[in-house]
Amino acid sequence: MNRSALVEDTYDAAHAPAAERPQLAAWARGVERSALQDMLAMSTRPGLLSFALGLPAAELFPAQAYGEALARVLRDDPRAMQYGPQAQAMKSHIVRLMADRGVVCDESQVFITAGAQQGMNLLARLLLDAGGRVVTEEVCYTGFLQVVEPYGPELLTVPTDPETGMDLDALEETLRGGGLPPAFIYVVADGSNPLGVSLSGEKRARLVGLARRYRVPVMEDDPYGFLSYVASPEPPLRALDGEWVFYVGSFSKVLAPALRAGWLVVPEWLVPKLSIVKEATDIDTATLAQRAISAYLDAGHLPAHLAGLRREYGLRRDAMLKSLAEHFPNGSRWSVPTSGVFVWVELPPPLDASALFVAAVEEANVAFIPGVAFRAGRAGVASNCLRLNFSNCSPELIREGVARLGRLFRAGRAVVKGQ
Amino acid sequence: MNRSALVEDTYDAAHAPAAERPQLAAWARGVERSALQDMLAMSTRPGLLSFALGLPAAELFPAQAYGEALARVLRDDPRAMQYGPQAQAMKSHIVRLMADRGVVCDESQVFITAGAQQGMNLLARLLLDAGGRVVTEEVCYTGFLQVVEPYGPELLTVPTDPETGMDLDALEETLRGGGLPPAFIYVVADGSNPLGVSLSGEKRARLVGLARRYRVPVMEDDPYGFLSYVASPEPPLRALDGEWVFYVGSFSKVLAPALRAGWLVVPEWLVPKLSIVKEATDIDTATLAQRAISAYLDAGHLPAHLAGLRREYGLRRDAMLKSLAEHFPNGSRWSVPTSGVFVWVELPPPLDASALFVAAVEEANVAFIPGVAFRAGRAGVASNCLRLNFSNCSPELIREGVARLGRLFRAGRAVVKGQ
Repeated sequence: MNRSALVEDTYDAAHAPAAERPQLAAWARGVERSALQDMLAMSTRPGLLSFALGLPAAELFPAQAYGEALARVLRDDPRAMQYGPQAQAMKSHIVRLMADRGVVCDESQVFITAGAQQGMNLLARLLLDAGGRVVTEEVCYTGFLQVVEPYGPELLTVPTDPETGMDLDALEETLRGGGLPPAFIYVVADGSNPLGVSLSGEKRARLVGLARRYRVPVMEDDPYGFLSYVASPEPPLRALDGEWVFYVGSFSKVLAPALRAGWLVVPEWLVPKLSIVKEATDIDTATLAQRAISAYLDAGHLPAHLAGLRREYGLRRDAMLKSLAEHFPNGSRWSVPTSGVFVWVELPPPLDASALFVAAVEEANVAFIPGVAFRAGRAGVASNCLRLNFSNCSPELIREGVARLGRLFRAGRAVVKGQ
Repeated sequence: MNRSALVEDTYDAAHAPAAERPQLAAWARGVERSALQDMLAMSTRPGLLSFALGLPAAELFPAQAYGEALARVLRDDPRAMQYGPQAQAMKSHIVRLMADRGVVCDESQVFITAGAQQGMNLLARLLLDAGGRVVTEEVCYTGFLQVVEPYGPELLTVPTDPETGMDLDALEETLRGGGLPPAFIYVVADGSNPLGVSLSGEKRARLVGLARRYRVPVMEDDPYGFLSYVASPEPPLRALDGEWVFYVGSFSKVLAPALRAGWLVVPEWLVPKLSIVKEATDIDTATLAQRAISAYLDAGHLPAHLAGLRREYGLRRDAMLKSLAEHFPNGSRWSVPTSGVFVWVELPPPLDASALFVAAVEEANVAFIPGVAFRAGRAGVASNCLRLNFSNCSPELIREGVARLGRLFRAGRAVVKGQ
C-alpha cells in the first residue's frame, strides 16, 4: 500500500481501474474453500480419530518396492529425469490392468495423467463449453463439482440411491428433456464417492445404452474399482462401449497418491486433443514417476499388493459395518459397499448430520463428512446422512470411533437444523 | 460405429444431437497441435542434431544425489506417499532460494506447483475472465499462449527487441489506451523464451512502476533466472514489488523437469484462492517429490550443482556464439544472452526461417524453431528469425550443427515465402 501511495501523485484516474489490489476473474472473487478442505483443516487436530477423508492406509504403501523401482530407473536411464513423451511401457501395463477388469483397449486409447482429478479436468476442458450442461447425481464427489465450476455449467441432477445408485428413469427423462444437449454424464460406477454404491450389471447396460441413444458421453470416474471385495465384480462401463464412455483411472488408491499418476481410456481420435490440453496444463506427466511405476509393475508386485489391500480394507469395512449395527441409533440405515472405501449412513430423522459433525469433533473427537457437503442438487437432500471412510484406520480404531459416534447420536442432542 | 447402428432403430431424433461421435467444446474443435509439438515430433528423428527444444542437459541431472534423497525420504517418512498439505520445509528452501536472487518473501507467500506451466495456469484461472485482455510481447513463449487460449482472450501485444526486451513506451501506450483493463502483463525478465533477453535494471523499475500505476499485475515467468552467466544479475521483478508482481518459479531447469515441481511467490491473500484452484486441478503436488527435493536441498547440494550448470551452459553458449560468428551469413544478427538457454538469430532478409527449417532438417539434419512459431501479434514479425537452444548439446555438437546451418543459409537457396 505504501508503494502504491508513492505513485499516487502520478496516477491517471481516467485510465486505470480503482482497485487497490489486483482484480480477480469474476468467477474467482466469490470462490471459497471446499467443505472437504475445511474438514481437512479440522481433521488434522492431533488425536482426532478421522473417518472424514478418503485417504488410503499409509502403512500399506509399497514404499520399499517402489523405492527399489525408482533406484533402478535412476541408475539405468539417464533420460528418466528429462521431459519426455508418455511411456509406452506404462501404457502397455495399463492395457493389461484394464484387461483384468474386463476392458478391451489398446495403447493408442490410453492417455497418462497426473491422477484422476487431472484426467477429469482435461476431459472437461475438451467437452464442456462455458454455460454448458452436465448430468450428475444429486449427491456427488465434490472434486467433480470443482472441475466444472469455472465453466458456470447448468447441473442437471438426477436422484441416486445408496443401494442401487443413479436413478436411470430420471436420467432418461433428463436426456429426453430437450434443449442444449449435456456435454457428458458424470458417474462413478464402482464404490462411488460418497455413497459407496456399485451399479448392477443391468443398470450398467442401460446407462451405456442411454448414452449411445442420446449421444451424450459418459465420464466414468473409477478411482476405487480395483478395490473390490466380491469375487466377480462387474466390469467398468468402458467394457460396454469404447466410443461413448471416457474412462478415468488412477494409481492413487492402487499404489499411492503421492505418485500423482493416473490414466484415461478414450477413443483414439481424442488422444491428440488431450495431448494439446495436457501440454498447455503442465507440459507432461512426470517421466520419472511413469518409469518407476512401470518398473514396479515389471517386477510383478502388483497382484499381491492389490490382494493385500483388498484383504485389509475388507477387514476394515467389515469392522465398520459390524460396529454400525452395534452402536448406531435404531432407524439408521447404511448399505454394504462391494468396492471402494466409503460407507454412507442415513440417520433417522430428525437427526441432522451437520449439527452432529460439530458435536462429534468437539465432544467425541471423531470426524466424518456430513452428507450435505456432497449435495449437487435439491435443497434438503442428504441432511441426515454422513460419509464414513474405512480405509485409513485400523479395525480397532474403527470400532472405537463408531462406538463413540453411536453414543453421541443415540443421545440425540443435536436435531434438525435449518437448511 | 457398429454399436451406434445397433441402437439406431430406437434413436429419438427429436431429442438427441446428430453427432455420430461425442461433441467437443467449441474452442476445442479447431484446436491443433502446437508448433512446438510438431517440432518435437520431427526432432526425435534418430541422429538429428537438435537446437529446437529448451531441454536441459540430461547428463547434468543430479540423478545420484536425488536418488539418495528419495531413498532417505521413503525410508524415514511413511507419509511421504500420502496426500498431504504443501511441505513447509520446501517453502522455507524456496524463501532462501529467492533471497539469493534478491527477493524478500516469506513462506506464507509461497505456493508449490507441479511446475511453471501449472503455475501460470493457476494464476490465469484466478485472474482472467473469458474474453478478457492480456498484455504480452509480440513474440512470446507458446506455452503461455496455450494457457490463455481457452479464455478466448484479446491479446494486447507490444513490440520487443532481442537486445533490450519489451518496448515499455508501447506498453505504457497500451495501458493508457483505456477500455477493459488487462488481467495481467506476461513477461520473462531473465533469459526470455524465445529471445534470450534479460531486462536492464532501469527497465525493470519502469515496468513495475507501470504495473502499479495502471493497476495491472505482472505475471513474471522465471524458468531461467537461476541460469545466469554474469557476475551480478539483476534481481527478478518480484524484488521490486510484492503486491503487483506474481512470480512463477520452476525446478525444471534448476534440478530436472521430471520432478514436475515449481512455485509461485504471490501476495499472501491470493494463497487460499490458489489452494482451491489447485485442489480442483490435481488435488495436490506430489508429496514425495516435495519431500525429496527438500531432502536434496537439506543436504546442501544445490549451490555446487547450479555453479556446474552455469559453467557448462556458459561454455555451450560461448561455443554457439563463436560458431555463429564464424559460419552464419553476413548480415545475420544475434544478441548475447546473459541467462537462460536460447540465442535468437535474425537472418538477413530475404531469408525465410520457416522455409529454411525444412531444408535444415532434411539436408543438414539439424533442427531449430523458426521465429514465426512464437508470433503472438502482427503478421510478418520474426519471419527471418530462429531460436537456437544451447543447453542440450555438447560444445562439439553445437559447433558442428551451427556450421552445417551456416553452410545451408549461406547457400541462400530458401528465400522469402508468403506469410
